[in-house]
Amino acid sequence: MQAERPGGGRRRIVIVGGVAAGASCAARARRLCEECDIALLDRGPYVSFANCGLPYHVGGVIAEEETLLVATPELFRDRFAIDVRTRHDVRAIDPAARTVEVHDLERDSVRTEPYDALVLATGAAAIRPPLPGIDLPGIFVLRTIPDARQIRAAVERASSAVVVGGGFIGLEMAENLVQRGLAVTVVELAAQVLPPLDPEMAGYVAERLRAHGVALRLGAGVEGFRPRDGGGLEVLAAGGEALPADVVILAIGVRPETALARAAGLTLGERGGIRVDEQMRTSDPHIWAVGDVVEVRDVVTGAWQLMPLAGPANRQGRIAAASILGRAATADASTRFRGVQGTAVCGLFGLTVAMTGASEKSLARAGRDDFERVYLHPGSHVGYYPGATPIHMKVLFARRDGRILGAQAVGEAGVERRIDVVAMAIQMGGTVYDLEEAELCYAPQFGAAKDPVNLAGMVAANHLRGDLPLAAWSELAGTTAQLVDVRRPAEYARGHVPGAINVPLERLRVALDRLPRDRELWLVCAVGQRAYYATRLLQHHGFRVRVLSGGMETHGAHAASA
Amino acid sequence: MQAERPGGGRRRIVIVGGVAAGASCAARARRLCEECDIALLDRGPYVSFANCGLPYHVGGVIAEEETLLVATPELFRDRFAIDVRTRHDVRAIDPAARTVEVHDLERDSVRTEPYDALVLATGAAAIRPPLPGIDLPGIFVLRTIPDARQIRAAVERASSAVVVGGGFIGLEMAENLVQRGLAVTVVELAAQVLPPLDPEMAGYVAERLRAHGVALRLGAGVEGFRPRDGGGLEVLAAGGEALPADVVILAIGVRPETALARAAGLTLGERGGIRVDEQMRTSDPHIWAVGDVVEVRDVVTGAWQLMPLAGPANRQGRIAAASILGRAATADASTRFRGVQGTAVCGLFGLTVAMTGASEKSLARAGRDDFERVYLHPGSHVGYYPGATPIHMKVLFARRDGRILGAQAVGEAGVERRIDVVAMAIQMGGTVYDLEEAELCYAPQFGAAKDPVNLAGMVAANHLRGDLPLAAWSELAGTTAQLVDVRRPAEYARGHVPGAINVPLERLRVALDRLPRDRELWLVCAVGQRAYYATRLLQHHGFRVRVLSGGMETHGAHAASA
Repeated sequence: MQAERPGGGRRRIVIVGGVAAGASCAARARRLCEECDIALLDRGPYVSFANCGLPYHVGGVIAEEETLLVATPELFRDRFAIDVRTRHDVRAIDPAARTVEVHDLERDSVRTEPYDALVLATGAAAIRPPLPGIDLPGIFVLRTIPDARQIRAAVERASSAVVVGGGFIGLEMAENLVQRGLAVTVVELAAQVLPPLDPEMAGYVAERLRAHGVALRLGAGVEGFRPRDGGGLEVLAAGGEALPADVVILAIGVRPETALARAAGLTLGERGGIRVDEQMRTSDPHIWAVGDVVEVRDVVTGAWQLMPLAGPANRQGRIAAASILGRAATADASTRFRGVQGTAVCGLFGLTVAMTGASEKSLARAGRDDFERVYLHPGSHVGYYPGATPIHMKVLFARRDGRILGAQAVGEAGVERRIDVVAMAIQMGGTVYDLEEAELCYAPQFGAAKDPVNLAGMVAANHLRGDLPLAAWSELAGTTAQLVDVRRPAEYARGHVPGAINVPLERLRVALDRLPRDRELWLVCAVGQRAYYATRLLQHHGFRVRVLSGGMETHGAHAASA
Repeated sequence: MQAERPGGGRRRIVIVGGVAAGASCAARARRLCEECDIALLDRGPYVSFANCGLPYHVGGVIAEEETLLVATPELFRDRFAIDVRTRHDVRAIDPAARTVEVHDLERDSVRTEPYDALVLATGAAAIRPPLPGIDLPGIFVLRTIPDARQIRAAVERASSAVVVGGGFIGLEMAENLVQRGLAVTVVELAAQVLPPLDPEMAGYVAERLRAHGVALRLGAGVEGFRPRDGGGLEVLAAGGEALPADVVILAIGVRPETALARAAGLTLGERGGIRVDEQMRTSDPHIWAVGDVVEVRDVVTGAWQLMPLAGPANRQGRIAAASILGRAATADASTRFRGVQGTAVCGLFGLTVAMTGASEKSLARAGRDDFERVYLHPGSHVGYYPGATPIHMKVLFARRDGRILGAQAVGEAGVERRIDVVAMAIQMGGTVYDLEEAELCYAPQFGAAKDPVNLAGMVAANHLRGDLPLAAWSELAGTTAQLVDVRRPAEYARGHVPGAINVPLERLRVALDRLPRDRELWLVCAVGQRAYYATRLLQHHGFRVRVLSGGMETHGAHAASA
């Protein structure tokens, strides 16, 4: 787009929605075009606020509301000459005339404004399911600063809360409500918290939540709400339980705000978001869409997804601006949205949980079974330096060539660092062999000469090389293999898998005749390392061997999530 | 190599040196060959000890000496059937006969032992320069557990220390001696601490050291040592200063222990280490070498280097084992040493400093000037969540295609994480465009929707796209450009670069006629962000503009290191 219209006058870009994607788009559009008119319209009272910080504002960690205002309308005006109007609701688009109908909510006046390029950054709305009692006072969602203000006021006089939904935001809310002194119950329809994770990894999180007094109702739907005698509410969970709650937070997800797009006849995708191309163009050549309102490609599975994440939203905004202003013809990656990896992190009561790429669940949904998985539990740094804590990791990779498909990790320190390294490896098309030889930061307080990322690569690569054939704990029920526990007798005595015989690694060379040769041996130890050493020895002596990946530690995680 | 010799009998692998590389080699050799005889000989009293932990043992952070013993001879024997012999000095190699002459230091007996494959993991020795007084009591190096024991004893009755050498180990020692209550002076021949870093980045470290009472003598050689009246020593620094010290630590680097290799006629490299190929083979077909004794290729510059790092040493050990045992024919990356990136990290008084890849200095040494540099100072996490601290970053990249060449970072939190991500990107041949679109972990307490890594990529990519032409502070002296400071008047008043005029960003659009058109404008702000916004505006109005990368923050770092 040229700054001047063919018929004269300045080009006009209208952006609907001014949080992450919309604000990024506006700022980049100005950087690329000083002569364009840029209008940023939002029906709410704020633009560019920090919605990811809202749970922590409720919890009091972020004390002042103003802190959440990343950029004010005045800053946009003074610094970028962008016409920001809050409390302005765009009610309709006329794609043929290239106009929008704008309702000024303050003055209650409506006017029609032209555009040369229109960007829909309308976001997503929290889902409020049509359950009995859903409109009772005390039931909140958390998407905006006014939402947070309401919840803060309600929490002042509350002593109990139910959070409906155990995803990232629901659990962040649970933690923050506990910090405010409330008794908190989380109700989640899935049989696990954090549904984007695989269940055995989510088990660590559930354990931490319970240790901090959060009651969990997993695999439980909510059927309605009713007033409680003496004030407050009761949340009616499936199965008949009535959970008392002075405050209820609905955190069961969001739905893209597509009403405008739908009415304008734009193509929507199968997941209900606006369908866009790599330049964020909709089916109308003068309309772009960015942020939580669009569907995005999962870079690993290729599936269309709704994936409301702040980083990708910002990138999409910048890419739309580049596309509008004619940068799209270049080969530059900044003009092309490659899709979403689903990198995410959450801090809960001192535990960090992070993931990138596909989960086993998302691969299964995409119909894939051509992958392998490893579990490991390395320390956050070397054991000889004080303060190391375990990082529980799971890495998924292609059976054929070792390409990394996804990773999940849970622990108290260094978790986001390892997931970020794997995220970069996935972005670059890396394999487990690349993880194996990564050269990462090491000093005693920061890691290990064999970093957890290296170890994950080594375990996975050894599996693919045939040096370490793995079995998954989920395969245990169907096996006829002999389980062999190679830990020390005292460890075995403290608890072992039924049917496992105990042959400590150190005595294996002299105990070979005790082991059956007519079936596979599945080796178990604490985390997998000693079983690896045993494998090589037993393979040499002609035994068919597999190692139960992640050892007793992962066995416990599976058992807890079953 | 087959497990059986052609003439019968078991194959015999002898490994000389049992710390990181040697121990890794022994363990992998056993995993690959159950039938081989494997001997691990070390002239010291311990194998597989944690030499990276020694400074922290001196400082008392790692209280017990036994904690440093990662694996004992008994464990190697029981678990891996490896014949570990400590206090056994290999005095000579006969390559033609394939034998080594082994001196048992305990029994003072010598015998000749055969090998089929010999691995030299003899490491490196701390340099003790032949200065006057070098053999006085109270002058120590720190490479072994006995070294640490001696220093701990000396520190008990000391109140002052001089550390000669301001590299990673010297500074770790300085911190730990301060923790023990000593008055510490560091004497460094270079004009900066941490010579692998570029000087302006090392300045942050020097500042932190001084703030914790460490006295620095930079650009100062040591000319000798002499006894002090009343006990202790004086360190004679160039220029005539005599520094009192009850304890002196020599940390001026290490020299590969090549005496054996040299006597055996093995080819050495130009840097004085053993020259090996990608499979760690020396010039003799039956001898391999691994760890600090070998020269390695710098993966970025291609130059041969001595780079004593634990991670690469471990990898080399495993690769040598694979090569010896016939795994080398496969395409597997685990059988090929790709070289060293120089990823390193150091924690000093709460500050973390980390780097990967080339520095500006190492690029200059390699004769390269085809690169660009950016500086930035993002927060470790979003500003609206409490506790964010700046990360000072420098990224080097190729002018032609944006390929990342190296990165350095200093800060209190999240430093090693960002360097690890860049390390993985470098390994995969990534560009600054890849950093720009990396999808990394973000929640308010963990980062930002635009992570520091993304910001580094964006600044660099904008420079390459021409949207943000950069100037370096080092070019300031020779320029005829007009400096324009776009900060607020109050910031300008608190300090600015001589000759800079003040035009705040917010008033730039109405002040264009105050700016000269006959020469370049070089823009300055606090960290570079506002100057970027100003650039786009001024470029549009026909001005020739560059931004001083990193803003006043980097100016200060340059000034402090000058």
